[in-house]
Amino acid sequence: MRLTDLAASLPASVPFTGPETLERRAGRPFAARLGANESGFGPSPRAIAAMEDAARDAWMYGDPEYHDLRHALAIHHGVPFDSIVAGEGIDGLLGYLVRLLVAPGDPVVTSAGAYPTFGYHVTGFGGVLHPVSYRGDHEDPDALLAKARETGARLIYLANPDNPMGSHHDAATVTAMIEALPEDAVLCLDEAYADLAPADALPRLDPSDPRVIRMRTFSKAHGLAGLRVGYAIGHPDLIAAFDRVRNHFGLNRMGQAAALASLADEDWMTHVRERVAESRQTIAAIARDAGLRPLPSATNFVAVDCGRDGAHARRVLEGLAQEGVFVRMPGVAPLDRCIRISCGPVSDMEILRGALPKAIAFAGT
Amino acid sequence: MRLTDLAASLPASVPFTGPETLERRAGRPFAARLGANESGFGPSPRAIAAMEDAARDAWMYGDPEYHDLRHALAIHHGVPFDSIVAGEGIDGLLGYLVRLLVAPGDPVVTSAGAYPTFGYHVTGFGGVLHPVSYRGDHEDPDALLAKARETGARLIYLANPDNPMGSHHDAATVTAMIEALPEDAVLCLDEAYADLAPADALPRLDPSDPRVIRMRTFSKAHGLAGLRVGYAIGHPDLIAAFDRVRNHFGLNRMGQAAALASLADEDWMTHVRERVAESRQTIAAIARDAGLRPLPSATNFVAVDCGRDGAHARRVLEGLAQEGVFVRMPGVAPLDRCIRISCGPVSDMEILRGALPKAIAFAGT
Repeated sequence: MRLTDLAASLPASVPFTGPETLERRAGRPFAARLGANESGFGPSPRAIAAMEDAARDAWMYGDPEYHDLRHALAIHHGVPFDSIVAGEGIDGLLGYLVRLLVAPGDPVVTSAGAYPTFGYHVTGFGGVLHPVSYRGDHEDPDALLAKARETGARLIYLANPDNPMGSHHDAATVTAMIEALPEDAVLCLDEAYADLAPADALPRLDPSDPRVIRMRTFSKAHGLAGLRVGYAIGHPDLIAAFDRVRNHFGLNRMGQAAALASLADEDWMTHVRERVAESRQTIAAIARDAGLRPLPSATNFVAVDCGRDGAHARRVLEGLAQEGVFVRMPGVAPLDRCIRISCGPVSDMEILRGALPKAIAFAGT
Repeated sequence: MRLTDLAASLPASVPFTGPETLERRAGRPFAARLGANESGFGPSPRAIAAMEDAARDAWMYGDPEYHDLRHALAIHHGVPFDSIVAGEGIDGLLGYLVRLLVAPGDPVVTSAGAYPTFGYHVTGFGGVLHPVSYRGDHEDPDALLAKARETGARLIYLANPDNPMGSHHDAATVTAMIEALPEDAVLCLDEAYADLAPADALPRLDPSDPRVIRMRTFSKAHGLAGLRVGYAIGHPDLIAAFDRVRNHFGLNRMGQAAALASLADEDWMTHVRERVAESRQTIAAIARDAGLRPLPSATNFVAVDCGRDGAHARRVLEGLAQEGVFVRMPGVAPLDRCIRISCGPVSDMEILRGALPKAIAFAGT
């Protein structure tokens, strides 16, 4: 057995360690799961009913065109059907996008500390990552553009709102960035948190523009992370190219049914947005009460500045884990002075309230 | 937007047209869905209950290590935990395997008319397919080996039992093929139909052997095609390499839960095997009554020789579709003298019994 040279060059890699792995190591389950920006408010009741209904039909392959879901998304967003591709989460779609656009050796620009799974795919297909620094707590469009010009990168990644910091740029800033893209470059605009973002964070959807592809998901506000349903909106030529490389049956039937039902449940989305807004306030208050500084958030999580370096923040994280609270943190300095706490129901917030002071005491001075 | 040279060279491709697409074209649903070798007998009641239970938990990402499912599979098969990788169906795993082993320009050997999705992935990663002919209704191990030696291929695909013909080789034949593999070559042994195969079709599992990787699925006998749960058993070094390229959260949480429950339901598997054996007999009888020749089957489908060429068989297929019966057929001569009818419940068999003579009349003489 001999791997390709490229495969042999790759590290055995797991972009994220799952909470289940930590639970197995610790020998006990977490009391509060606030680390993966999942929606502890759960899926829409209509999505749950759709899943229950679909259970008996699980013997049938799902529609490989994902027609009904894409059709509903097209109406929902007011874009043409052929400008939408769906897939196995944004993670899966990022892999396909990189595969379509990045040949071995090609430069790709992202931010140091941005979504690791994007970098995982770039490296995995032999691309060369050129990371730029955040500017304060924000990704830096000017630096991304400058680095793209410098390296000749034709793929640039920006998450807006941003993960892991929770910050956002307004639509005008993102639009200006798109207008300033180098020729032939594509902006992968990861809008996983779009459903929870302030309205001014989202540029108008314009799938006639070949320079940008917008990534969306049912994993965050819709509370369907476990079913792996992501989609992208882009120029029909780019969207059509996914059919050359994607796992055509990869988006499971249950996920298609649940996403379709969730999309129709506007009341649930309103409910989730309200709960998330409350929970952001609660996390901020808990952090301040513990002497930490919560950052503003346009997402369903709050980055909390622990006030010192990455080693200290990591100890706070370990302290939280010992108290049964699963939380993650940015992987790169200086972002890693923060921990990233996901919004969740009141019961989880109460656990967090009890645990955070103990975690800070554990972390020491 | 500029695709990589490789991506630009690929056709916009769909390895299989889904029955939903045909239904949308026809403007009405099929009455009997007998074309994708799904299990019309449905999922295990325990799997259905597990899905219903998991619906409320769909807000959580699934375990990216798929630990509990892999652990149960390891015990079930009596192999080490680290010799098992799971993924988004065999389709997904085939893509990862090809990506690990096939660099652009590398030769790969398969059979003309064998599983198109394997070829889709080989082409998609720039490999060069070298197909050999079937020998009668069987894939031809000697021809596969000879072509591998001739071309220097290090990846060879064999489905046993075979799809689309339903034939099988015995374990001794497959073992002899493994022993005769060229140095450094890997046999991808697709055993999607293993749960329905005669015991003598399956060589002993030996994950200490780096020359072979065995693909299995919950899509066939387990009736969970819609959830996309496949797995592979192989040498731990090859299995570990999947972690370098796979979509780590790609196997959805619901699929993990349902597969785990189904694996524990031996009674259901016995039930399905009995129903499949009955249905094979029924399909054979219906085919004979219509003047056609059913081939022996080691799977949950029966290839039926329509007695003439591919054009004729395709007309029979079209006739069946007009009668509301979804069936597929092999894509390559001389296999395409056959249509491939999936096993199903008695009600579907009755629809087939009524439809087949009309389809033959439609096909003409």
